[in-house]
Amino acid sequence: MQWNFSDRAASLKSSAIREILKITEQPDIISFAGGLPSPDTFPVKEIKQAVDHVLNGNDAIGALQYGPTEGYVPLREWVAKQVSRDGITVRPTQVLIVTGSQQALDLIGKALINKGSQILVETPTYLGGLQSFTQYEPQYVSIESDEKGLIPDSISDDMAKSASFMYLIPNFQNPTGRRLSLERRKQVAELAKKNDLVLIEDDPYGELDYEGNRLPGVYTLAPENTVYLGSFSKVLAPGLRLGYIVASETLINKLVQLKQAADLHTPSLTQRIAYHVIKEGFLEKHIPTIRALYAKRCNAMIDSLIQHMPKSVKFNRPEGGMFIWVELPKTINATELLAEAVQNKVAFVPGEPFFANSTNIHCLRLAFVTVPEEKIEKGIKILAELIKKHTA
Amino acid sequence: MQWNFSDRAASLKSSAIREILKITEQPDIISFAGGLPSPDTFPVKEIKQAVDHVLNGNDAIGALQYGPTEGYVPLREWVAKQVSRDGITVRPTQVLIVTGSQQALDLIGKALINKGSQILVETPTYLGGLQSFTQYEPQYVSIESDEKGLIPDSISDDMAKSASFMYLIPNFQNPTGRRLSLERRKQVAELAKKNDLVLIEDDPYGELDYEGNRLPGVYTLAPENTVYLGSFSKVLAPGLRLGYIVASETLINKLVQLKQAADLHTPSLTQRIAYHVIKEGFLEKHIPTIRALYAKRCNAMIDSLIQHMPKSVKFNRPEGGMFIWVELPKTINATELLAEAVQNKVAFVPGEPFFANSTNIHCLRLAFVTVPEEKIEKGIKILAELIKKHTA
Repeated sequence: MQWNFSDRAASLKSSAIREILKITEQPDIISFAGGLPSPDTFPVKEIKQAVDHVLNGNDAIGALQYGPTEGYVPLREWVAKQVSRDGITVRPTQVLIVTGSQQALDLIGKALINKGSQILVETPTYLGGLQSFTQYEPQYVSIESDEKGLIPDSISDDMAKSASFMYLIPNFQNPTGRRLSLERRKQVAELAKKNDLVLIEDDPYGELDYEGNRLPGVYTLAPENTVYLGSFSKVLAPGLRLGYIVASETLINKLVQLKQAADLHTPSLTQRIAYHVIKEGFLEKHIPTIRALYAKRCNAMIDSLIQHMPKSVKFNRPEGGMFIWVELPKTINATELLAEAVQNKVAFVPGEPFFANSTNIHCLRLAFVTVPEEKIEKGIKILAELIKKHTA
Repeated sequence: MQWNFSDRAASLKSSAIREILKITEQPDIISFAGGLPSPDTFPVKEIKQAVDHVLNGNDAIGALQYGPTEGYVPLREWVAKQVSRDGITVRPTQVLIVTGSQQALDLIGKALINKGSQILVETPTYLGGLQSFTQYEPQYVSIESDEKGLIPDSISDDMAKSASFMYLIPNFQNPTGRRLSLERRKQVAELAKKNDLVLIEDDPYGELDYEGNRLPGVYTLAPENTVYLGSFSKVLAPGLRLGYIVASETLINKLVQLKQAADLHTPSLTQRIAYHVIKEGFLEKHIPTIRALYAKRCNAMIDSLIQHMPKSVKFNRPEGGMFIWVELPKTINATELLAEAVQNKVAFVPGEPFFANSTNIHCLRLAFVTVPEEKIEKGIKILAELIKKHTA
């Protein structure tokens, strides 16, 4: 039987990196590869209590029956309240609950991208965003970026006017760990307002600032222009697959139509579990424990990098999130290095697939949050030795 | 702010029927509208036990962490075993777990439809299938159908050869309740094999045959050509949003790539809950209780229709499933009738949106499984009186 895939499906390539990374699920590998939150932070006890509450209560049938595409109303109300800040009021009708933030990216691609539409993206940007958008065959415009994130001055009014949207992760970006400065946030907001540019602000890591120095979300600076994507994956548990979109009702109504065709609605049970865990302020106590753990592991990795890496290797010190971005000497191919590293029981993600246009072979992403400190040191030392062999 | 939707999104219309049906969620309405299973059949106790087992056990972290896009391995193994029958062996690698069968339809549309691709569909067919496929801008070819379902003799070899796929619901179809005869199943299988035609066999209601007279799935007759879609919504609980795709590994691997971009994976927790409920044969005891309840309510509705409807109203007697298809005299517009019915506290779904091409205004779908018998009689009597006013 010959399968004739659609053009969009045929253009998807199986990822060589994904194949290598399958090996890294073995328990004896020190993996800095996956973008997984630390399971030490999962509130198993509270989730158990919430499930008991839901399934023993009046709403057990609601938790098991079909539900509205828009999402569970109390959860939408909670989200609206949570994101109403810095002088911005969000209504529950502006909130759509989705099956993880990844679904938000897919629905937005469906809603806004025609074949050939121009999309502005950071350099580098989140691989999963590229995967979702690419299905709808856009043309990517890579925005110049530096260690402070994207450079708004590099975006002309013409670029802004002709783009379907700009996709950005202002907080502790995946893959770089960079945070966009307040000044640049304001510039992005002004640029958007001036040119009717839609901003897709993806914010799964916003709560993970180690010092609690939150910067205002771009959506609070340009609320009309911004579609804000939030997630419960990094503050509760990713296995629930729960995220949300906050936007104008005009867009939300269109996304609801698309979501209905995509999965009818997000599971009724998981939405209620999340709501009952968080409804009485649990996250205010819980998130600081996540920040403390991640800050400790980040520091351990930075210390190890400083101690072991040759001077020709560059890396940043993130102020939050889960990732460190490493630039190797340009002669070293990170994908080839991964093959060697895996043989030595260490894994990471090469940077190349995070670039929409350029071919960048000498960068890599390190995730530190799932690895205990002593193993971080061991893993970085192994990596450093392999790199030194190449630079010698 | 002006939102510029993609062509595919702009072409989606808000459904007038959906707006009317929102009213029908009021508790004083007798609703034959929703395609919801009866909550009396939800195994709340067994689901509670399964959650306890999962969250108290070794795999609590697995239930809350990111998981593989393909799905939870034990559940894939269970599905493979379940659908291996009538001489057909299905491997777990041929199974993809999805976030409800609706997601299967979306992923298949993405994988197989180019703009203008020809898709063969029954007349009428499942509205949600049309919603998913339409996003990818196919050209529908409506297959002649009668009270025994689609008519294979009406499909020429040329039609079969030039189609991307044929979408069919052989068991107790939504919206008609019809079951495709064994002879026609064999004809469809032969047609597919002869012409390399892909068959999308959507089977959410297959287990709901009241007499237990299962007919072989088309996938067992043309295994190379058939993509089989199964669901836990009608045999466990739809609020879990769990379904599965069974197909050749070539297609499954492509669908995995697309699902990764759509929602990364189906929630880890709900997959484990379903697995632990069903792993030791629960469905073998449970499904007969669903069949018995639905058969009783189906009979109540048929009895009421016979007793109250004028002779000019035609309907079928389904052998299973959740729906009865009603043909009114051609002068009666079912959408207009709905508005009158809702004023009289009765609801149904007009047939029109289930037709891909023709404008069919005089048919309607009745769902009987969520309504107690005494209310079925009352509701049908009200409907019959309204219809009689039009035919008088």
